[in-house]
Amino acid sequence: MTIEKNALNGHPKPLILVTNDDGITSSGIRTLVELMQTLGEVVVVAPNSPQSGMGHAITIGEPLRLYSTELFDEVDEYECSGTPADCVKLAKHYVLKDRTPDLVVSGINHGSNSSISVLYSGTMSAAIEAAIEGIPAIGFSLCDYRDDATFDHVKEFVLSITKAALENGIPKGVALNVNFPAKSDQPIQGVKVSRQANAKWQEKFDYRTDPYGRGYLWMAGDFINFDQDKEDTDVWALSQNYVSVVPCQYDLTAYQAMKKMETWSFHTK
Amino acid sequence: MTIEKNALNGHPKPLILVTNDDGITSSGIRTLVELMQTLGEVVVVAPNSPQSGMGHAITIGEPLRLYSTELFDEVDEYECSGTPADCVKLAKHYVLKDRTPDLVVSGINHGSNSSISVLYSGTMSAAIEAAIEGIPAIGFSLCDYRDDATFDHVKEFVLSITKAALENGIPKGVALNVNFPAKSDQPIQGVKVSRQANAKWQEKFDYRTDPYGRGYLWMAGDFINFDQDKEDTDVWALSQNYVSVVPCQYDLTAYQAMKKMETWSFHTK
Repeated sequence: MTIEKNALNGHPKPLILVTNDDGITSSGIRTLVELMQTLGEVVVVAPNSPQSGMGHAITIGEPLRLYSTELFDEVDEYECSGTPADCVKLAKHYVLKDRTPDLVVSGINHGSNSSISVLYSGTMSAAIEAAIEGIPAIGFSLCDYRDDATFDHVKEFVLSITKAALENGIPKGVALNVNFPAKSDQPIQGVKVSRQANAKWQEKFDYRTDPYGRGYLWMAGDFINFDQDKEDTDVWALSQNYVSVVPCQYDLTAYQAMKKMETWSFHTK
Repeated sequence: MTIEKNALNGHPKPLILVTNDDGITSSGIRTLVELMQTLGEVVVVAPNSPQSGMGHAITIGEPLRLYSTELFDEVDEYECSGTPADCVKLAKHYVLKDRTPDLVVSGINHGSNSSISVLYSGTMSAAIEAAIEGIPAIGFSLCDYRDDATFDHVKEFVLSITKAALENGIPKGVALNVNFPAKSDQPIQGVKVSRQANAKWQEKFDYRTDPYGRGYLWMAGDFINFDQDKEDTDVWALSQNYVSVVPCQYDLTAYQAMKKMETWSFHTK
């Protein structure tokens, strides 16, 4: 292994910031912290409450709270009242001040962030926020929503993918979206670099009445995959019991569309 | 004008869904509703409170409230307790049920959503959510954060860009991010189709102590543009008093990075 070769900032071990969106007490982040401690110096800044579905939300117009915690062994750790993206900003510009992490890892999320779910994902927004800061970043998610999900079968892959990222360097402007199959009878087949499947959630709203007679709605939905059987997608890789790795960029510009729009007339002077 | 030609669903006038992230009582959405009423049938589903910086957050694990309002003339209108993305989902799958809007417009946001701000923007997330649903969508933002911002100077451009989008059709998988210069002594120069400038917010956290002796932090920051003087960017267009139009896609896959990663070894069986 050549982590030392690539470790920046003159430190012998890489400085690794760990965050997530399920909150600092979840078992997913505990697994990730313990794994990262075998690779480098770990700092944790994570939300003090579940932040699933927060997307790339940041806290504007309200102050943030930040408290140190003692949940892990030999880790500099903080819980924050904000979103996953807030946590990365706070870690980079307040907690760590003069030190820049060599790597930011987020997760391990309880639930898939493959396909279109990457847009709603607090886990991945933390990783993308790190990429905006120029820091190599990986979001890890397990396709199992349960609080007591099992992470044992993915530990070796968390380490191997993290080592590969530290060795090769993650391309600029990009963060990795890693999704793991849920624990099953079958062993994981390996790792596939994939693209984001084109899919959406088909929402259904469940109308109910509260004890005061006022209506409210629960959002639920079915996943609709427009890329069924496309073998280059993350959803396909996961369906075949592979780990999917999608490099995600934060430049949303649709360059092909820009070309098409050259012919548009805007009917103005 | 050929809006009628392009209007779908067999209706004589296009069905236009209006939402925003500043909340249903803001003057920006009022301006947008009035303009859209000159083009088609308008339905409003918008947040009941400011949702700036909510990114692509959605409400999971909590119910949503939806109430009809009477803020506009001759408009089917609702306020919602959720995020801008929730509003689009609710409108499409609950309020409108069997009808699909011909267009979704979001805004006019009080504040710029150019460059990296598109990621944090509730305004644009509503538009992108519509694009995921296959509906043409435009987010409009004014580079003026004030509640009493003036929108008069951009009205003709809102209409001309909307008409151009209805006439030409917005490419699949894409929503338009339109930003307007703030009102100034100089007239707007025209419309420029641009790319998202590569930039970031350099955060500073202001530590204070509350009346109970506990610390809290305000997030503030400076905008750092790595694409200074790049004339193909949205930030440059706005600096020259042009309206910027950036087509944004929700496929985050970094295809170039996928190629680079072909050589990675993940050290697993």
